[in-house]
Amino acid sequence: MNRTPPLDFTATCPVQAAPGDRVRLAHGGGGALMHRLIERLFLPAFANPALEARHDGAVLEVDAGRIAFTTDTFVVRPLFFPGGDIGSLAVNGTVNDLAMCGARPLWLSAGFVLEEGFPLADLERIVRSMREAAAAAGVALVTGDTKVVEAGKGDGVFVNTAGIGRVETALEIAPRAVRPGDAVIVSGDIGRHGLAVLAAREEIAFATTLESDCAPLARPVLAMLEAGIEVHCLRDLTRGGLAAALIEIAEAAGVAIELDEAAIPVSEPVRGASELLGLDPLYIANEGRFVAILPESEAERAQAVLARAGCAEAARIGRVQACAGGVTLRTVIGSRRPLDLPSGEQLPRIC
Amino acid sequence: MNRTPPLDFTATCPVQAAPGDRVRLAHGGGGALMHRLIERLFLPAFANPALEARHDGAVLEVDAGRIAFTTDTFVVRPLFFPGGDIGSLAVNGTVNDLAMCGARPLWLSAGFVLEEGFPLADLERIVRSMREAAAAAGVALVTGDTKVVEAGKGDGVFVNTAGIGRVETALEIAPRAVRPGDAVIVSGDIGRHGLAVLAAREEIAFATTLESDCAPLARPVLAMLEAGIEVHCLRDLTRGGLAAALIEIAEAAGVAIELDEAAIPVSEPVRGASELLGLDPLYIANEGRFVAILPESEAERAQAVLARAGCAEAARIGRVQACAGGVTLRTVIGSRRPLDLPSGEQLPRIC
Repeated sequence: MNRTPPLDFTATCPVQAAPGDRVRLAHGGGGALMHRLIERLFLPAFANPALEARHDGAVLEVDAGRIAFTTDTFVVRPLFFPGGDIGSLAVNGTVNDLAMCGARPLWLSAGFVLEEGFPLADLERIVRSMREAAAAAGVALVTGDTKVVEAGKGDGVFVNTAGIGRVETALEIAPRAVRPGDAVIVSGDIGRHGLAVLAAREEIAFATTLESDCAPLARPVLAMLEAGIEVHCLRDLTRGGLAAALIEIAEAAGVAIELDEAAIPVSEPVRGASELLGLDPLYIANEGRFVAILPESEAERAQAVLARAGCAEAARIGRVQACAGGVTLRTVIGSRRPLDLPSGEQLPRIC
Repeated sequence: MNRTPPLDFTATCPVQAAPGDRVRLAHGGGGALMHRLIERLFLPAFANPALEARHDGAVLEVDAGRIAFTTDTFVVRPLFFPGGDIGSLAVNGTVNDLAMCGARPLWLSAGFVLEEGFPLADLERIVRSMREAAAAAGVALVTGDTKVVEAGKGDGVFVNTAGIGRVETALEIAPRAVRPGDAVIVSGDIGRHGLAVLAAREEIAFATTLESDCAPLARPVLAMLEAGIEVHCLRDLTRGGLAAALIEIAEAAGVAIELDEAAIPVSEPVRGASELLGLDPLYIANEGRFVAILPESEAERAQAVLARAGCAEAARIGRVQACAGGVTLRTVIGSRRPLDLPSGEQLPRIC
């Protein structure tokens, strides 16, 4: 599979949205205004040959083998928050879903739903952020679409990204590959993204600055695969947090997972803010954290590889058991607490 | 590239949304309610091995060669209209963009943005429609995502689809392949989709029933390619209609296109309704029509192949000229009228 030539991200983005310019219905109508938006904002920002063909889709070269394909729509509110915005989130979210398939992310699509009246300067800021996140993750944005809805029928902007990656391992990385005795490793401290968005939305000022963990995860995942570690399952810890991710894996794999609460990395600011708000960090969304489930014999080496790939706080937090029984938390005081799937009502629109 | 095994579309969709059931914020929160929506609605509707792996993305086998990748978000209003709904539109729209790249559509993703309070029975109806459209087009829906926004922050449902297809021709099909002297062929009568949606939205009762032309276009396109016709460019006639599609191609290719108004197929109901509403059929969106630009020497054969592939009304409507000069219409009374890109304000939200 050949990559399209490298993107020229040094070119400045030649848009000059005046402060008062706003999205109009005609920006999505297939006419002159939409044309101008594409020519002046999207094409220069994401410049690459596939996009410049200006066709109905991108045509890309692939080698024989396996590809991963995934999609996510982003409706986060507010659009801008400490540590990221809907643009970086939309790129990293899909890049990370590809990484969780053991794939090297290559190409993204982007679909925008703009609300009439949305400031063009904000759209420009979001597009710049997507460009930077794409450059950092090494992906090219090769095809896109823009729609506009009337004021009051949307919420500023929603962004969908879909992505394609090349699976570079022969392993099957999926819940059904999980085995009793496997170790559960988390790539870093949990809970920062959900709390950062919540704080920005509710204008809660925490004592310390809490930033989203929003980040691309392909590098640490590919480092493990390149080191020959027999990874059984990967999952990024988005909606529903660590708890929901592991409950879903346990159910799909027909196993039980026991977690050691004391081993789960939670930063002091997250612990404090969670207590204040009555939230459990285990259920708070992250956008730059994942769990890896792999043979116990490989756990130590995996942690070392992750540390070298930027996940210094990667920690072994639990173990897979043979029985089918969901996820249990061995608490710091030694009791056992079964973890239930959250209702989903606690933290809406954090991604 | 191997297809996933054929889908079992005979299985009935085992959802039982009670008449009063509505979307709640928690349906998008990553918890139990979202889990139930996926298990009971999406997985049974689109049953296939990639989806059933329940992973963050689909892993798919490809052969070496070229793939096409495209995306579209659908915000059509109303959601249900004569001849289709947002579900069939979302499948056919992306299938058609792949076909316009000369690709055989294989796999789709689906991303839903639901508004709190949206009737679950309507969502079920849309999902059934997507399933039927996917079966008719021979594509598998292999990965998806669902988000929920508060009441008043969306408009019922928006659907994004992205798609991957296998390019089965060595031809370059793109505006830059267009040559002076080429013939322009349209695959059928124009203007039905936009008028059907507008009529349903404004509750305009036309004398005759006007149905959307919403349909998959891969079959006629692949029939031309299989017959060895040297297709230079393809474009489906969505937002902005026939006029916008040809103006964009002429601009990207640096050529002029002359159209013969008398040759452009417009049905009597479309002609009548357009006159009544002061609309020009050339600018009205279609969802099952395309133009093919190909050597004049191949035009007759192409029309015959299209007719056998279900496009009985395919017609030769114009010719590419060497100068760079946009699109000109030779009218029925013999005058010449240059066509301008529409502003885009005329018919919002028809796809």
